[in-house]
Amino acid sequence: MHVLVLGAGQLARMMSLAGAPLNIQISAFDVTSENIVHPLTQALLGHGLDNAIEQADVITAEFEHIPHDILDICEASGKFLPSTEAIKIGGDRRLEKALLDKSGVANAKYHVINTKDDFTKAIELVGLPMVLKSTLGGYDGKGQWRLKSQSEADSIWPEIEDCIAESPNQAVVAEAFIPFDREVSLVGVRSIDGTISVYPLAENIHTNGVLSLSAAITDSALQSQAKQMFTKVAETLNYVGVLALEFFDVSGQLLVNEIAPRVHNSGHWTQQGAEVCQFENHLRAVCGLPLGGTNLIRPTAMVNILGEDRLPTGVLKEQACHIHWYGKDKRPGRKMGHINVSASSYFELSEQLLILSEILDEASFPALKSYAIKLSHSDS
Amino acid sequence: MHVLVLGAGQLARMMSLAGAPLNIQISAFDVTSENIVHPLTQALLGHGLDNAIEQADVITAEFEHIPHDILDICEASGKFLPSTEAIKIGGDRRLEKALLDKSGVANAKYHVINTKDDFTKAIELVGLPMVLKSTLGGYDGKGQWRLKSQSEADSIWPEIEDCIAESPNQAVVAEAFIPFDREVSLVGVRSIDGTISVYPLAENIHTNGVLSLSAAITDSALQSQAKQMFTKVAETLNYVGVLALEFFDVSGQLLVNEIAPRVHNSGHWTQQGAEVCQFENHLRAVCGLPLGGTNLIRPTAMVNILGEDRLPTGVLKEQACHIHWYGKDKRPGRKMGHINVSASSYFELSEQLLILSEILDEASFPALKSYAIKLSHSDS
Repeated sequence: MHVLVLGAGQLARMMSLAGAPLNIQISAFDVTSENIVHPLTQALLGHGLDNAIEQADVITAEFEHIPHDILDICEASGKFLPSTEAIKIGGDRRLEKALLDKSGVANAKYHVINTKDDFTKAIELVGLPMVLKSTLGGYDGKGQWRLKSQSEADSIWPEIEDCIAESPNQAVVAEAFIPFDREVSLVGVRSIDGTISVYPLAENIHTNGVLSLSAAITDSALQSQAKQMFTKVAETLNYVGVLALEFFDVSGQLLVNEIAPRVHNSGHWTQQGAEVCQFENHLRAVCGLPLGGTNLIRPTAMVNILGEDRLPTGVLKEQACHIHWYGKDKRPGRKMGHINVSASSYFELSEQLLILSEILDEASFPALKSYAIKLSHSDS
Repeated sequence: MHVLVLGAGQLARMMSLAGAPLNIQISAFDVTSENIVHPLTQALLGHGLDNAIEQADVITAEFEHIPHDILDICEASGKFLPSTEAIKIGGDRRLEKALLDKSGVANAKYHVINTKDDFTKAIELVGLPMVLKSTLGGYDGKGQWRLKSQSEADSIWPEIEDCIAESPNQAVVAEAFIPFDREVSLVGVRSIDGTISVYPLAENIHTNGVLSLSAAITDSALQSQAKQMFTKVAETLNYVGVLALEFFDVSGQLLVNEIAPRVHNSGHWTQQGAEVCQFENHLRAVCGLPLGGTNLIRPTAMVNILGEDRLPTGVLKEQACHIHWYGKDKRPGRKMGHINVSASSYFELSEQLLILSEILDEASFPALKSYAIKLSHSDS
């Protein structure tokens, strides 16, 4: 099987590593350079997008911000999965909120803003405090505002107006601020025949809007709630492949915050902690193969490496730690890799995370120590 | 780090998959075509051996039958590990037996045959029955004879004489036939600073001289015996990297049969069953990084796929089964891939192997069913 991935970043890279043992070969379309490359070596594969589409058995995507003309060409080939609709929805907050309503899953109240009048109406309908998100941006915390009181409305409006003016299709979605206890996410997979299998929920810690830590958790009530919502969204989309749902956990009640129509950073722990990782399962699904196991084989947490291209040798000395570099050039804040930490129990996992937090610089890995301490006090 | 591997087969391929997450890039020297290729894609990397040696940080090997002039060029670069001596020993049964004696590890009585007189003397010194092996061949059961009685000696000699005449350096090693209960092997790793870490022993089932099944076992007495012998051999060689020792188990007493100075087929189970697999650990060792964990994380067996390029879909449906194809063209008997089967207990593993044996054709996977039945009756 030959799979063409739109996007040539770390997600395509990890798909290629996971696909190789199944004889699934991956080529990747680099959306910026418009080159077809091997996602592991970044070697040019010497043919244009048309040829690559022709040669592929299946086409999929590693991210949702893909020009629509390219999506349309791929759609026309009849080879694209999960569906270009799902990718477009994932890249547009308006469509995403409409999907959540259509699927009948709980989500924060919202109103779409195109004009100053919409903005006034949003404050009225959604209430304060509210969060405002550019509908086409909003990746890793960019293009977001918080409005706490009416008195700030006038000062924030010019920024929102500028954002909307950016492009003809841009808008801003105003959403009720949810006082959540924590953010959790569910990564799952749906096969061509409609079989759904989900991984255990992950608890996610964001720092400055970027995911810094994600850990598989076991909570059967929350898990069953999340799986129900996952099923509704996946079936509404007639989705095929790995899909991630991010939730606000409000006293044990989940509200869907957003979806990602692809393998997801909060599912990287599955490489060490699940029977079959999310990358292999995405490929199995889009290639029409039976799904692999999504069960937890041992407690595992993932720590993102942001803006660093080196780690102290001590990390490799820790037998619980598995480093996954993405082979990228260093840039401040850039996702450069991640560390999966596995253990035989949650208590041992908390100890391992604590050891790791002593080795790593707290400024670069801010969530690690506090999460380890929190975990050591929990009884999960 | 950039590692050049001599040999571009499945072992180099699996090294490249295991090295990528550590940002270790692998190129491979195809000994047959003399090309430098990427071991995953087999793409030509467009430079000769000299250039590849120049660009590599470290050079290692995936097999022992490498022309000595190439080994010598690599040795001269000062970058080769484990050591060209170890590779040469692995490719020459005479040197291998001498190493086992020098290391002081138990092994079958033997005598080297270059002439008819040597042959007569071998029968006298080693005794009957005996096994005869060509010193430079002997891979996967080729170039081997059994001599059961003196009356067969005259009829077998012409074949042995022909074998010795094949090349100036060829000879035949006569060895006492060992009535062993089973064959086990120990895969371990030694770092540049001399640290040794070994995986659990694997029990190996050969069919027609080729490995068909290998399963991690837990036997602390046998494990400690094997580790002692591993340590002696590895230290005698001042070895760096993954080394495999194959043993005859004779009523709980181990005799070393042979060594493999490389990652080994009987260590493929570590991809699913150990903290860090043999491929990553070999790279960690030769790159001077700390060793990864060699502990068993769950009972795992490996089943070789020989001469087949397809499997029934049922295999992928079994959540315990992990397929690893090598991307090779089909040839009768060729090692095309392997299946790792993992379970939470040995009893469950026996059940999973039994299920797999119902899915697969017994003629192609002859050892599977009988091993599953044997395992279900054992108490390990």
